[in-house]
Amino acid sequence: MKQLILIRHGESEWNKLNLFTGWTDVDLTEFGRQEAFEAGKLLKAEGFKPEICFTSYLKRAVRTLNQVLAAMDMDYLPVEKSWRLNEKSYGAIQGLNKAETAKKYGDEQVLRWRRSFDVQPPALDLHDERSPRMDPRYAELSDAEIPLTESLKDTIARLMPYYKDAILPALNSHDTVMVVAHGNSLRGIVKELKGMGNDEIIKFNIPTAVPYIFQFSDDMKLEKDYFLGNQDEIRRKMESVANQAKNTSK
Amino acid sequence: MKQLILIRHGESEWNKLNLFTGWTDVDLTEFGRQEAFEAGKLLKAEGFKPEICFTSYLKRAVRTLNQVLAAMDMDYLPVEKSWRLNEKSYGAIQGLNKAETAKKYGDEQVLRWRRSFDVQPPALDLHDERSPRMDPRYAELSDAEIPLTESLKDTIARLMPYYKDAILPALNSHDTVMVVAHGNSLRGIVKELKGMGNDEIIKFNIPTAVPYIFQFSDDMKLEKDYFLGNQDEIRRKMESVANQAKNTSK
Repeated sequence: MKQLILIRHGESEWNKLNLFTGWTDVDLTEFGRQEAFEAGKLLKAEGFKPEICFTSYLKRAVRTLNQVLAAMDMDYLPVEKSWRLNEKSYGAIQGLNKAETAKKYGDEQVLRWRRSFDVQPPALDLHDERSPRMDPRYAELSDAEIPLTESLKDTIARLMPYYKDAILPALNSHDTVMVVAHGNSLRGIVKELKGMGNDEIIKFNIPTAVPYIFQFSDDMKLEKDYFLGNQDEIRRKMESVANQAKNTSK
Repeated sequence: MKQLILIRHGESEWNKLNLFTGWTDVDLTEFGRQEAFEAGKLLKAEGFKPEICFTSYLKRAVRTLNQVLAAMDMDYLPVEKSWRLNEKSYGAIQGLNKAETAKKYGDEQVLRWRRSFDVQPPALDLHDERSPRMDPRYAELSDAEIPLTESLKDTIARLMPYYKDAILPALNSHDTVMVVAHGNSLRGIVKELKGMGNDEIIKFNIPTAVPYIFQFSDDMKLEKDYFLGNQDEIRRKMESVANQAKNTSK
């Protein structure tokens, strides 16, 4: 049996402030750190033994993974980081308050940026200080690879090469693999694994800091997928994410 | 110019309890975490920009590195972990109180185990629950590679292949490389870089959580090495480590 564990990072500072985050590198809140630690304790109690981990270049994901590994007493595990697992870029609306953005552009427009499969928010200017081109961690990327804005479709498109070249091969050579990333990059993996349509994946909300387990046969047929933990609590978390979306938050 | 940054992990729980640690996987103390964070803040203030990091399989080193990267706002850096950077194995005296061990075996014997270059403490039994053979993280090692006890000479011997195959090549392809490890594995690197003799390296005490900077010309000639920070404070830390040694602590 093979297992893939997906975890969305815990609550971040900007979730609390109601700002569009995207590629902005904000920290977890204390609550977010605790959520992450609890997820690790649960995985340990249930006997999960990941052998390799993947995460993004954004500290809210890296620190969630650090908390999970600390709780599992598995700090020694290999960790690979990739910008391809980053959150969807929200372009020029990153750092803006969600309510103010809705006032400026209208509720409907903001909903389209957030909830359509292929509509991009306005792009960052090349020389905007928020542009990843200004950030040395993305120096390895070509100009064509650096997103100045993204639809969910774009996010999935830049995620998939990494999923196919790094994560799937890891599942081939290991029994259990763990990926700690973001709502929209994880949507890309879930869409692929469950064969979901574009409309379906947009409505699918992944709760924060809940281990989402995919179980495969040895020849990689998906046998079962489930959220690990108290199912009532998970339902509440999923509804809270869905409701955030209604209020144009992310 | 090329730079190698060495950092010995911050204070651990067993430093405080006066127990022989070696390969035992104990956590940092709160003071140890703070020391590590301060080291990261200092590196950031001084403009150091490591591009790749190396650490051991032991959580006191991994968590020191996590703190340093958090303080530097560089959580995204690639990190490679290797058992070859682990602390010297103290064999069958791991987990024993240092004072009690001195009472049982005599001060002189314990001093030899701690301060000779090539004397090993008594070996762990193959089936001792403290043996690395029982620990899944070392499943990749052959029986010959798993240390049941080590002299400093042994520690350096198993460190050097990794130093040559991973750390030196990283210095070839990057300007700045950071290694967070342990008193004795770092001694191996310092001995190599400074061409120290066996007696000299044994007397050389690396203070905890102080960035130790090696500066090279582009063709890797060592130009300068120094401890970064308040020099009085560093001297106090080095003396404190040296005094610990006199009392057969580690």
